[in-house]
Amino acid sequence: MAPRPIIIDTDPGQDDCIAILLALASPELEILGLTAVAGNVGVDLTAANALKICEIAGRPDIKVFRGCDRPLEKPLTIAPEIHGKSGLDGADLPPPRMALQRDHAVDWLIAMLMGRPDRGTTLVALGPLTNLATALCREPRIARKIDELVVMGGASRALGNVTPAAEFNIHVDPHAADIVLAGGIPTALMTLDVTHQVLATRARRDRIRDLGTPAAATVARLLEFYAKRERVGPDGVPLHDPCTIAYLLDPTLFSGERINVAIELAGTHTTGMTVMDWRRRTGRAPNCLVFREVDHERFFALLTERLGRL
Amino acid sequence: MAPRPIIIDTDPGQDDCIAILLALASPELEILGLTAVAGNVGVDLTAANALKICEIAGRPDIKVFRGCDRPLEKPLTIAPEIHGKSGLDGADLPPPRMALQRDHAVDWLIAMLMGRPDRGTTLVALGPLTNLATALCREPRIARKIDELVVMGGASRALGNVTPAAEFNIHVDPHAADIVLAGGIPTALMTLDVTHQVLATRARRDRIRDLGTPAAATVARLLEFYAKRERVGPDGVPLHDPCTIAYLLDPTLFSGERINVAIELAGTHTTGMTVMDWRRRTGRAPNCLVFREVDHERFFALLTERLGRL
Amino acid sequence: MAPRPIIIDTDPGQDDCIAILLALASPELEILGLTAVAGNVGVDLTAANALKICEIAGRPDIKVFRGCDRPLEKPLTIAPEIHGKSGLDGADLPPPRMALQRDHAVDWLIAMLMGRPDRGTTLVALGPLTNLATALCREPRIARKIDELVVMGGASRALGNVTPAAEFNIHVDPHAADIVLAGGIPTALMTLDVTHQVLATRARRDRIRDLGTPAAATVARLLEFYAKRERVGPDGVPLHDPCTIAYLLDPTLFSGERINVAIELAGTHTTGMTVMDWRRRTGRAPNCLVFREVDHERFFALLTERLGRL
Amino acid sequence: MAPRPIIIDTDPGQDDCIAILLALASPELEILGLTAVAGNVGVDLTAANALKICEIAGRPDIKVFRGCDRPLEKPLTIAPEIHGKSGLDGADLPPPRMALQRDHAVDWLIAMLMGRPDRGTTLVALGPLTNLATALCREPRIARKIDELVVMGGASRALGNVTPAAEFNIHVDPHAADIVLAGGIPTALMTLDVTHQVLATRARRDRIRDLGTPAAATVARLLEFYAKRERVGPDGVPLHDPCTIAYLLDPTLFSGERINVAIELAGTHTTGMTVMDWRRRTGRAPNCLVFREVDHERFFALLTERLGRL
Repeated sequence: MAPRPIIIDTDPGQDDCIAILLALASPELEILGLTAVAGNVGVDLTAANALKICEIAGRPDIKVFRGCDRPLEKPLTIAPEIHGKSGLDGADLPPPRMALQRDHAVDWLIAMLMGRPDRGTTLVALGPLTNLATALCREPRIARKIDELVVMGGASRALGNVTPAAEFNIHVDPHAADIVLAGGIPTALMTLDVTHQVLATRARRDRIRDLGTPAAATVARLLEFYAKRERVGPDGVPLHDPCTIAYLLDPTLFSGERINVAIELAGTHTTGMTVMDWRRRTGRAPNCLVFREVDHERFFALLTERLGRL
Repeated sequence: MAPRPIIIDTDPGQDDCIAILLALASPELEILGLTAVAGNVGVDLTAANALKICEIAGRPDIKVFRGCDRPLEKPLTIAPEIHGKSGLDGADLPPPRMALQRDHAVDWLIAMLMGRPDRGTTLVALGPLTNLATALCREPRIARKIDELVVMGGASRALGNVTPAAEFNIHVDPHAADIVLAGGIPTALMTLDVTHQVLATRARRDRIRDLGTPAAATVARLLEFYAKRERVGPDGVPLHDPCTIAYLLDPTLFSGERINVAIELAGTHTTGMTVMDWRRRTGRAPNCLVFREVDHERFFALLTERLGRL
Repeated sequence: MAPRPIIIDTDPGQDDCIAILLALASPELEILGLTAVAGNVGVDLTAANALKICEIAGRPDIKVFRGCDRPLEKPLTIAPEIHGKSGLDGADLPPPRMALQRDHAVDWLIAMLMGRPDRGTTLVALGPLTNLATALCREPRIARKIDELVVMGGASRALGNVTPAAEFNIHVDPHAADIVLAGGIPTALMTLDVTHQVLATRARRDRIRDLGTPAAATVARLLEFYAKRERVGPDGVPLHDPCTIAYLLDPTLFSGERINVAIELAGTHTTGMTVMDWRRRTGRAPNCLVFREVDHERFFALLTERLGRL
Repeated sequence: MAPRPIIIDTDPGQDDCIAILLALASPELEILGLTAVAGNVGVDLTAANALKICEIAGRPDIKVFRGCDRPLEKPLTIAPEIHGKSGLDGADLPPPRMALQRDHAVDWLIAMLMGRPDRGTTLVALGPLTNLATALCREPRIARKIDELVVMGGASRALGNVTPAAEFNIHVDPHAADIVLAGGIPTALMTLDVTHQVLATRARRDRIRDLGTPAAATVARLLEFYAKRERVGPDGVPLHDPCTIAYLLDPTLFSGERINVAIELAGTHTTGMTVMDWRRRTGRAPNCLVFREVDHERFFALLTERLGRL
């Protein structure tokens, strides 16, 4: 079977890095390009980090595009307290030798998608949705070119990680999320409800380190750094972003439901919340596949096996 | 030990009825009065239902006061689809012979509380908080007279039951809830997160019916009606309101945490939501004891034993 | 003709003082009582000021009631920068010898109104609407007892005086204003649009001072103080509150239109704004007579003549 | 003096048409291009109308670009009840022979502006600000390329024309307006407060018709149509959009003040309102030159003289 063509929109970030490496290690996926956006850290850093990640994987052929440097309507808020100053703290990577593509990420997204068949491209979004929302404002017809958009973002039963109600990626640019959800793209949402079930415990982190490859060593170092900042329970490092790629590789790892999701833009305490109509109280049509459960054992088996290939 | 003096503010409702009967059956509590409010049905019905419930328990001495007939700032929304037209559908009770007290519930609340010692009275609120909020607007000093306010309302990890984000009692009068939470009363919140763990299954309903007393027979009938309307899982009837009384009788049945709770008043999708700062993201001081877990086996043992006394 | 029975709800305030004196000087009005509320300054001061004002007018028979000490849902914000620390700075009045009535203003409002005929009493509100809103929450049936409610509050073409969009009285307690507008009382609104046309210029202030009576001397001192803080144009002191009483004395002084007015409660920049549907854009039914124009020459003639009677 | 280079972003619309003709008739201005946006009618129509307007003026050399077909976050609302089905009803113009440029308006705006010197280009926005906001999201650095942005939009003392609080252009895409105001571009705002002073009365319309040229005849027909739909007072047709061009031609026609303007995005009744801090109540720095007065006699003299040149 031909590999599935995907574009990864990302703000690396330790967990973005592992997601991208998982994708690069997987022959089922053909990465058309990476687009960087401001989020975990500023866009200059996320763009540079995307280049570095390709180099870890020995893939200088991957095209990397720099995108939007701020959310649509809010000032940028970043998370160096989680990801370190560089966004990839812990990895100690040299400056990238690869160069960024000249096109702006938004222009390339539009041109690339419009040049491809309807429902012919998969999009994975690992950061704030600013690039994609800007592309949709400029060219709404890209919606029909996308067969599936898999977003890491939001929270429901699990709690927000920035405010009591809101998850980081959506909270940074809630207006972008609102635009994307209204854009008519088949969308799947990987929320904190799922990603908090996917915990890189000590044992699992050791198993990755013991792969013995340089890429695995880098991942292990990133995870040790990340483990000190982003913790769920006594020994858990939630691997948010890699869940999106794992879903593309093996959808049976995840289960969920198609429901309506709305972005709260006006709340005093709830701005950036993904309001999920699990019980069909609103009468609004389902607009997202929202995941609820993950087989975390099989997830880590897949992740570890794939990282070993790099 | 002297019984604990309590006032129950209520909008019966089948589950209110069971809560009140549990209180009336318990010598640890001295019911100073019942105050009725509009909520599950209109206040004429909830006041009449409160009288009927006292009669079921053979307690015509209990004082019942009619309170507010509408929320502070929203039109009243009721829930006959859950509770039936009368609010106590299923019970088939005759009109009450007892009479309402002449005072308005709000006036009596203020006069009663102001005449008692500081921190000398417990309040249990089983419906929208309109009566209590109106009393607080009129006489803010009642706050110091209350040693504990136990509210059935709100939701966090569990979902709203009216909208994706909001629970009925708070959603009906969110402004009242906001006033009460700001009023400086020591408050405990019994949310859907807990009450959805307290399920009157077929077996438990049968055990109550098998008590064989007239009061138990009435409760059994109410539960059969309620079981058709308010259902969690294949065989579960959540007993929301009785949890508050059970907590007063045996606090060890419940566990929770003191956190900050804010009422969302301005959200497009989240008005009436109880925004709970479990992870201390907001910097706002804790203002509520919010319950998370309940020992439902012991709860039903307690409830069944007490109903057997009536 | 029998004098028109009115209740004045007030937070004096220099301009409240002049309004009350105007009423006391006018045989067309029978003042059933004054109810004090927190607003320009705290309620202890506004209640004491109401007593002092009655004494200025030689009317120790007027009943004065202390009301709510804070807005329904917001912390109290006062305006000592306009009215001075006492609320009546400039007048140098001795402490009142009169005593407050024992009843709370809200209780008395309800009892008084419910004991009178339908549409038999006029209400004038010169401060935040907290007392009236609380009374309406407790006893919605008072609405039908009021033949007209004249409120000083709001702004439309003129600008807000607290924020770009909101006038002080409404901004202090917008939820109370919302409750009052929804309460079904025939309401007339005296906004900044009108009161900024009613300017006590130097010449007009002198004319009052030259009346030569002790009461006029007090008013003149109040106006000199006020003139330093509340200024419209080079020589204008807007007499907000007296407009309401002048309207009762001579409705032909004012012209306006019945339109729909809504209170904005949720805006980021507009909370407390009176949103006025002059052009019938909303489809909502008119709920207020909103004044637009005033004959300010005749207003000052009336005011001066009446103050001369005291 | 070299003509001032301007770009006109527009959604014609009768008054847009007159504004564009005024610009085309004026040697002081060099029109770099017209960009069409959805607003008064859909973007296919506004783009076609822009072409037709160039043809009226005998200027087939003007570049016209099609832009965004919907607001950023709201569904498109149009105003055919004012402008007719075509947006230029009344003119009875043949289909355009000129062709649209191939580039999207947003791409061209970015490329054109980035290729020009800092503060080297003037922008005039006659419709919703969607094109400009999208360009700013994609390339924030265009802000420094613009020496002045003149926007027809908003209202302050005058009332909204869509809701009691909001003017059409801002109301259609308030999020775009918010982005533009935050973008750091020197901005001047021509609100309804001014444009309602610029009334094409019967006499003034006749004077234009009597110019006797084909262009003037078209304008006269547009005005007769428009006069039936958009009316201020007994005989007034407000010429909103032409005020922006007149200001560029002769700034002394208008007077205003630099103040802070905020866009209300969250109000229940006020969304899309331009909240203007005339009295410096907010502490926010001025971000707009907002006009208040216009010399309408000289405006019409200028307009009539220039239309006569076409």
